Amino acid sequence: MRFIDQTKLPMEEVYVTCKTYVEVADVIRNMVVRGAPAIGVSAAMGIALGVKNSKAENVAALKKDFEQICDVIGKTRPTAVNLFWAIRRMQDKFELLRVRPLAQIKQALIEESQRMHAEDIAANQAMGKHGATLMPSSGGVLTHCNAGALATCGYGTALGVIRAAVEQGKNIHVFADETRPFLQGSRLTAWELMKDGIPTTVISDNMAGSFMHQGLVDAVIVGADRIAANGDTANKIGTYMVAVLAKEHNIPFYVAAPITTLDLSLDSGAKIPIEERDSTEITHIREHQLGPDGVAVHNPAFDVTPNHLITAIITDQGVARAPFQVSLKMLCDLKSNGVSVEKM
Amino acid sequence: MRFIDQTKLPMEEVYVTCKTYVEVADVIRNMVVRGAPAIGVSAAMGIALGVKNSKAENVAALKKDFEQICDVIGKTRPTAVNLFWAIRRMQDKFELLRVRPLAQIKQALIEESQRMHAEDIAANQAMGKHGATLMPSSGGVLTHCNAGALATCGYGTALGVIRAAVEQGKNIHVFADETRPFLQGSRLTAWELMKDGIPTTVISDNMAGSFMHQGLVDAVIVGADRIAANGDTANKIGTYMVAVLAKEHNIPFYVAAPITTLDLSLDSGAKIPIEERDSTEITHIREHQLGPDGVAVHNPAFDVTPNHLITAIITDQGVARAPFQVSLKMLCDLKSNGVSVEKM
Repeated sequence: MRFIDQTKLPMEEVYVTCKTYVEVADVIRNMVVRGAPAIGVSAAMGIALGVKNSKAENVAALKKDFEQICDVIGKTRPTAVNLFWAIRRMQDKFELLRVRPLAQIKQALIEESQRMHAEDIAANQAMGKHGATLMPSSGGVLTHCNAGALATCGYGTALGVIRAAVEQGKNIHVFADETRPFLQGSRLTAWELMKDGIPTTVISDNMAGSFMHQGLVDAVIVGADRIAANGDTANKIGTYMVAVLAKEHNIPFYVAAPITTLDLSLDSGAKIPIEERDSTEITHIREHQLGPDGVAVHNPAFDVTPNHLITAIITDQGVARAPFQVSLKMLCDLKSNGVSVEKM
Repeated sequence: MRFIDQTKLPMEEVYVTCKTYVEVADVIRNMVVRGAPAIGVSAAMGIALGVKNSKAENVAALKKDFEQICDVIGKTRPTAVNLFWAIRRMQDKFELLRVRPLAQIKQALIEESQRMHAEDIAANQAMGKHGATLMPSSGGVLTHCNAGALATCGYGTALGVIRAAVEQGKNIHVFADETRPFLQGSRLTAWELMKDGIPTTVISDNMAGSFMHQGLVDAVIVGADRIAANGDTANKIGTYMVAVLAKEHNIPFYVAAPITTLDLSLDSGAKIPIEERDSTEITHIREHQLGPDGVAVHNPAFDVTPNHLITAIITDQGVARAPFQVSLKMLCDLKSNGVSVEKM
């Protein structure tokens, strides 16, 4: 498996090759690959790679290896539900196939992960189609973090919607929050959008309010790492702040995420586990130390935006609006039916 | 004149010595010294230094040099009104003395700048006294940028209030926004407060909302670069965002600034000039490039927080509350009377 190393972008375009599932787990943990949808598909492919490499000589032994692989992959990052969705889907597939010959199981799991890759791209394009109409025909759109091609298998969730709007001839200027501490905005979003020729201005996170106040932002669109049944949305730290600011300035705030990012098992966002990452992400940029030795730091990687701050959630199945409890369930059911029709 | 180089803190404690007023202007422009009160006193001392070095042989020639010096110093940074206040005070002093012998004028201007230095420290201590009662007896206080000893001639404005509260036995935990792009929070505020043993946690700017939402912040206190007659306050970029978040979470939002930061000639904050600084402050940290080559960037150094988001303005003359138009004018008059009594 090959990954573009997102920790090195945009200064270096370096690829990392993983030959084992343990290496794939490291790549997810260290954010060489990041973004909820990309994490999900990487997990599935990592599992397929682990299964392919397994030296098990019978299905029972393979199942044991498979469980160990899923366990290691599942302990990489806690917030994005796509990781657990992907593991669950691979587990279901294994369960369905457990009476088949070993080689057939291996092949089917590899194909399942490849199918998930293709489905993710299709989901992004569908989100683009559903969301583009919500974008202003001309104006500024602010985004936080990177919910682009790099965060998915291609096209992007929030940036997919922006891309689709631009393809429809809309005249959009993107404001990209730089997104401390990992700088996904200045490093990744700016890089992606500049490649596509979409006008983009990088601002530090603390400028968002000021630009909204000046009337330069007509809409906000972000991705998501996990969406609870009531629409509460976990996304990159700072998303909550942007949502509060959007409300204060009467600017629509959109979330774009595939159905696979929904976690209807949680009734509210309060139950979403929030990853705390290493303090060096705040105290250092690469080798360069910023703050004093021994300074105390908090580094939660995500926050939860309550549903009442969200204008609409754009999914591959359509656009959900409040009450999200109802609308998200409906889109989810549509998807389940769709999936069963395609897959059975 | 010796300055601690604030661009190098906290990794290096290096001092810069200025032998000419042009060097002092550079030190202000390049943010070796920063913070509205410190800029004001540095400007006055820079003018005194320039006057001292002047080769003028009569008062008319000295006046010409003096005007040139004031012009250069006045073009360093546009937002902090303390710079213009300091120049004006030196001009008034010169005007008052213009019939005196040249040596006496030089000496009086040097003494005036030294008096301004002493007055600034006293003002900070007075702000501390007035503001400490507003701090929670126990809890979290969030601050943005650095309004500490480094931003003043000692003790600090916002951090002076925190220091005074801690000296009174209050149990305060400071959350310091790192304050992109110049990182005054993680570099300077954390360094200062750690030296004083005041518990401090650095967070990235985009975490402020999340920590408020978790109930960890009981008050916000910031400094100011210029306050209009109606209380609208220009301060470091991101202050407006923090104020909106404080309002959303029903947390008091305090501004601490000496009377010298008031600009009653402006009826509202809309008229405060906002400095746009070099884009490399966003695209680079020291020599390390963050974003893609040629990326567009905005870098306003300040924003304006409207008066309705401000709970109170703590000055050296007392605490102003809404309607600020009235309360600020009253404190200003008190100060003018006080100054005339002390100085005449």
